[in-house]
Amino acid sequence: MAGNTFGKQFTVTTYGESHGAALGGVIDGCPAGIEIDLDAIQLDLDRRKPGQSKIVTQRKESDTVKFYSGIFEGKTTGTPIGFQIVNENQKSKDYSHIKDTYRPSHADKVYDDKYGHRDYRGGGRSSARETASRVVAGAIAKQLLSQVQVTAYTSSVGDLIMDKPYQELDFSEIENNMVRCPDIAFAKAMEQKIVETRKEGDTIGGTITCVIQGVPAGLGEPVFDKLHADLGKAMLSINAVKGFEYGSGFAGSQMKGSDHNDLYQQDGTTHTNQSGGIQGGISNGMDIYFRVAFKPVATIMQSQETINSSGDVVQMQGKGRHDPCVVPRAVVIVEAMAALVLADHLLRARTSKL
Amino acid sequence: MAGNTFGKQFTVTTYGESHGAALGGVIDGCPAGIEIDLDAIQLDLDRRKPGQSKIVTQRKESDTVKFYSGIFEGKTTGTPIGFQIVNENQKSKDYSHIKDTYRPSHADKVYDDKYGHRDYRGGGRSSARETASRVVAGAIAKQLLSQVQVTAYTSSVGDLIMDKPYQELDFSEIENNMVRCPDIAFAKAMEQKIVETRKEGDTIGGTITCVIQGVPAGLGEPVFDKLHADLGKAMLSINAVKGFEYGSGFAGSQMKGSDHNDLYQQDGTTHTNQSGGIQGGISNGMDIYFRVAFKPVATIMQSQETINSSGDVVQMQGKGRHDPCVVPRAVVIVEAMAALVLADHLLRARTSKL
Amino acid sequence: MAGNTFGKQFTVTTYGESHGAALGGVIDGCPAGIEIDLDAIQLDLDRRKPGQSKIVTQRKESDTVKFYSGIFEGKTTGTPIGFQIVNENQKSKDYSHIKDTYRPSHADKVYDDKYGHRDYRGGGRSSARETASRVVAGAIAKQLLSQVQVTAYTSSVGDLIMDKPYQELDFSEIENNMVRCPDIAFAKAMEQKIVETRKEGDTIGGTITCVIQGVPAGLGEPVFDKLHADLGKAMLSINAVKGFEYGSGFAGSQMKGSDHNDLYQQDGTTHTNQSGGIQGGISNGMDIYFRVAFKPVATIMQSQETINSSGDVVQMQGKGRHDPCVVPRAVVIVEAMAALVLADHLLRARTSKL
Amino acid sequence: MAGNTFGKQFTVTTYGESHGAALGGVIDGCPAGIEIDLDAIQLDLDRRKPGQSKIVTQRKESDTVKFYSGIFEGKTTGTPIGFQIVNENQKSKDYSHIKDTYRPSHADKVYDDKYGHRDYRGGGRSSARETASRVVAGAIAKQLLSQVQVTAYTSSVGDLIMDKPYQELDFSEIENNMVRCPDIAFAKAMEQKIVETRKEGDTIGGTITCVIQGVPAGLGEPVFDKLHADLGKAMLSINAVKGFEYGSGFAGSQMKGSDHNDLYQQDGTTHTNQSGGIQGGISNGMDIYFRVAFKPVATIMQSQETINSSGDVVQMQGKGRHDPCVVPRAVVIVEAMAALVLADHLLRARTSKL
Repeated sequence: MAGNTFGKQFTVTTYGESHGAALGGVIDGCPAGIEIDLDAIQLDLDRRKPGQSKIVTQRKESDTVKFYSGIFEGKTTGTPIGFQIVNENQKSKDYSHIKDTYRPSHADKVYDDKYGHRDYRGGGRSSARETASRVVAGAIAKQLLSQVQVTAYTSSVGDLIMDKPYQELDFSEIENNMVRCPDIAFAKAMEQKIVETRKEGDTIGGTITCVIQGVPAGLGEPVFDKLHADLGKAMLSINAVKGFEYGSGFAGSQMKGSDHNDLYQQDGTTHTNQSGGIQGGISNGMDIYFRVAFKPVATIMQSQETINSSGDVVQMQGKGRHDPCVVPRAVVIVEAMAALVLADHLLRARTSKL
Repeated sequence: MAGNTFGKQFTVTTYGESHGAALGGVIDGCPAGIEIDLDAIQLDLDRRKPGQSKIVTQRKESDTVKFYSGIFEGKTTGTPIGFQIVNENQKSKDYSHIKDTYRPSHADKVYDDKYGHRDYRGGGRSSARETASRVVAGAIAKQLLSQVQVTAYTSSVGDLIMDKPYQELDFSEIENNMVRCPDIAFAKAMEQKIVETRKEGDTIGGTITCVIQGVPAGLGEPVFDKLHADLGKAMLSINAVKGFEYGSGFAGSQMKGSDHNDLYQQDGTTHTNQSGGIQGGISNGMDIYFRVAFKPVATIMQSQETINSSGDVVQMQGKGRHDPCVVPRAVVIVEAMAALVLADHLLRARTSKL
Repeated sequence: MAGNTFGKQFTVTTYGESHGAALGGVIDGCPAGIEIDLDAIQLDLDRRKPGQSKIVTQRKESDTVKFYSGIFEGKTTGTPIGFQIVNENQKSKDYSHIKDTYRPSHADKVYDDKYGHRDYRGGGRSSARETASRVVAGAIAKQLLSQVQVTAYTSSVGDLIMDKPYQELDFSEIENNMVRCPDIAFAKAMEQKIVETRKEGDTIGGTITCVIQGVPAGLGEPVFDKLHADLGKAMLSINAVKGFEYGSGFAGSQMKGSDHNDLYQQDGTTHTNQSGGIQGGISNGMDIYFRVAFKPVATIMQSQETINSSGDVVQMQGKGRHDPCVVPRAVVIVEAMAALVLADHLLRARTSKL
Repeated sequence: MAGNTFGKQFTVTTYGESHGAALGGVIDGCPAGIEIDLDAIQLDLDRRKPGQSKIVTQRKESDTVKFYSGIFEGKTTGTPIGFQIVNENQKSKDYSHIKDTYRPSHADKVYDDKYGHRDYRGGGRSSARETASRVVAGAIAKQLLSQVQVTAYTSSVGDLIMDKPYQELDFSEIENNMVRCPDIAFAKAMEQKIVETRKEGDTIGGTITCVIQGVPAGLGEPVFDKLHADLGKAMLSINAVKGFEYGSGFAGSQMKGSDHNDLYQQDGTTHTNQSGGIQGGISNGMDIYFRVAFKPVATIMQSQETINSSGDVVQMQGKGRHDPCVVPRAVVIVEAMAALVLADHLLRARTSKL
């Protein structure tokens, strides 16, 4: 009810604050018998971790995950998987200025409204540092989904919008650049834009596109827990996300049915894929694809007017170590959340038929 | 797990197929002591019901709801509220042609893939007729939310996009036209477009905007169950929805932080509201607003190529009674789902503090 | 959260008050493809219904169930199963005396404490009439559990305790007598005791034993959702239940390990079955058996001192139609709840392994 | 669904195996603003920990809990509370003999049946060592329940049954003896019996009684989540528990209504308390009391016949460090689980009324 658990069958419950002793979680409902590749998990954490390149926050964290249960002799046992990532590089002093002052477009004030008592250091629980736990869980979900490929990439930074269809892109280029855009020319321009934005003490938004291939037909529940509804919720639960669209998306709302319908071919696939691989909330075996919008990071290195907890108007300037653009590091978070949704529905689908 | 329940504290579980004997559901977790205005509930059902105007499906249903429990002497008792709407105007024969033939961009085939056995009449459970039950539950949620106003309206039909800020609109005009657009000139043009589209035997998509006013600060949970994540899931669970954005939305992804941040005023409100009334997943007391994209209805009155359950390629033409554009009737469904999310979080927030 | 749903995978949500218009519910998570025998469902309802013999309440209800969804051409479709039983023989006037007076050992006063507003007629939601919905759901669960036999019987009435091991009993005798005790001599004595008790205007308690045969090994989750913990909760959720024990039960607490341990035989079964078919919360394939204690019905036809809602001490005498002993009719409720637990865990176990 | 989470509003999710690196969990849904007394938590852990006296297992664990989140400057923040207890004294070699041999009346074989792959060391997840995490969560629940006193004690060991009513006992004596029985003479006899039993290489069962005082009226949900049903499930989820009864319990099943009914007094309390403080599943403000039956520990230091995973009949003798009687250490586990149920329902009751 307090909403720190995601999923119904394959679940992850996370805990931890930005500047607390550690982050971690419990994965429950993972079937027994999955061989776990620990290096692959750490690799995903490395894709998310701070300090990995010049265009991300310079907080230094190794983000090393340790597992405590649920894995024995290299395979899952069906019991809950407890894990933890120790926080190593808290600089809580950087945050003393926000103890009583509410940062604009941050959650400081609403936490006070809701809870009356909060860990203000580094944003506490509202920090995107919490997503490290999601990446761990998502990496294990990926290993359950051995037949499925989940691939996310940066598709825009500010007004630099790379709108090539995913079919024309070379996914192997994604990890070859800091921005994680598979189009190299765009990647360079995006990187340049982020660097310039940071120099101005500013931040910038962007979008991530995700493609999921190899999904069997039949995943997703028909009414409230439609597959795309759960994907949408998963994405919207990521810090800074403002929008989600799948298949034809918002553009589809401008179309006519005669153009939008996906006509079947003899093999049961469809000529087009406006449906985005999902019909009536249930996967049809075609590629699933969706797009996620991220706002610019709220902490900027410019002076802004705000108020403090006493209601006085004050000036404040961003401190601490922050990302000028959240998108490059969020690529792996999008993948993780998508994998969690699919793992959950893959298991749930086992009970659809007698 | 089969996903026919929505909400965690204030919940609705729905049942019913398009051409079954009845639709209905159970509302659980509604507090005792709420005075129930039955007319207001029926009014919302009337806003959704088929046959209400010339631009919607001509299926004739009175959509009269009957309550069986949980309301006593005009007030809720805290026990579950069972309700039912009898289907009166099934024309199941209209659907014999889809018993073995899969309609393009419908859920017929994925239901077969998932369940192996399905009620094909009128699309069975995949029909948007199920949303009548949501409207009932949403209408009761609205009565719990006595301080909150939930207002949805049609903001585009096809490429007719009415993008005036909601603050400039006269909401009292919404119910004065068939399309439910508060801008009268746009409403006329949209109506015209829908009529023409139907004449072509075609269908068309559109968007709905929803504004929620009077929400207290502190609703929403900080991590997975962010208020906007639950709103997004709610909207994406509505038939034909392809996208969701709140506050600055996709446009926000093109902005810089210095432009996007909402600066506080002395009274705790913010000068701008790019946040859409939600920060870090928690309501801040400002207006919540979001936009929902609907694809064109899949059933068109033109001949299309498709396949049957034997895998043969066949021609099929739409039959039955269908909406040329789903948006006018979906306005009240958007409101209902928004009200369900808010009622759920209003109650959940009661446990945030000691 | 309001607790009107039972189960996690195979669920039933019930609604309805004793003297409301109808009782009913929604079964969700039932797999597609189960052939439904409607007569078998009605037969179970008949075993529970009032007026079936001279030793039960004389309220006249046909308790005819109607299904509205989720079953098509004789088989489940995987979508929710909505059902309803209309109340036909409410005599609400019989209950006007309890509008403001709290019956001893009934829930009248705590409902007022909890909700402030209640449907007092016939006890409203607190009436065991609600269990009719459970019997419907349990009867469907039994049809999912085609390999499993769930058999309950009356094992004591007051101090008439029939403690023969179930292996020595002829289950085919259970339905041959009003008390539902498989030992005919005991059944006669029990019936006699109930008749005498009623003549005194009094009521009497009893116990029910339940045996479940043919359960596959591996059902039940190892920690909180142990199979016997869920069975215990299920039984304790039935009106008037005061205790639950399985396998060796309370007697086992007096034993030594050397006597209590069940030693394995070569075929993997055990020589004894103190474990009651469950080890560490997980079924082992042996017979599951447990015992449930029911208190005497609280409504007696004698004058008792009590208080009213104004806090005055008053005399009251039972009115309305009541059972002198709840056990004979509760036999099928015990079976229904046991079947619901097993169906839930049978489906849940499908996700234990890769 | 895998059942490692307890509670709906105030929840704990646990992880960890007997001989894994650590045990721990996440408490979610704890309101903000509770002052946390860490010493009180550790004190409860000390009451459960091994090696505390000569009549319990001699495994040496400090059972020191560390918290990672959710508590800031001495008070809860409303965010999840992550905690961990490191395993210090695993002697996994003691368990190599059970890698392929199934211990009688243990869960070894059913784990193999269910999961196919298990951590056999010390019983893995099936070990009662998992309950250390429950004690941590229960200790925090107790601090939320500041007005409520939860007191458990040993009421029998084998056939030594101390059946004095709890009102005649001096609870302050409970922690003054190793057995945790408030009657000193009985405590001595029980201790003697346990010592003798261990000398025989045997084990013995017992019962624990729990009394809960100061509970406000109105906790518990009326149908499936009755307060006593959730207490029963909580108790039955503890390792080795075979039975649960509350209020008049099994004895109540032998009574007549005229004797069993609790008659109201003018102040709203009742003369007697057969109801055990709960009517219709809802607390009435009177004392809640119940009794829990524990079987003898399955591991005995005598040779027993069993089978191995190849199906061969073999002899095995208990090894490792085990309790001769689980009851003295289980007293605090019973309290913890009771506190978890009450905390959960205390918060859930906040939504009963408008």
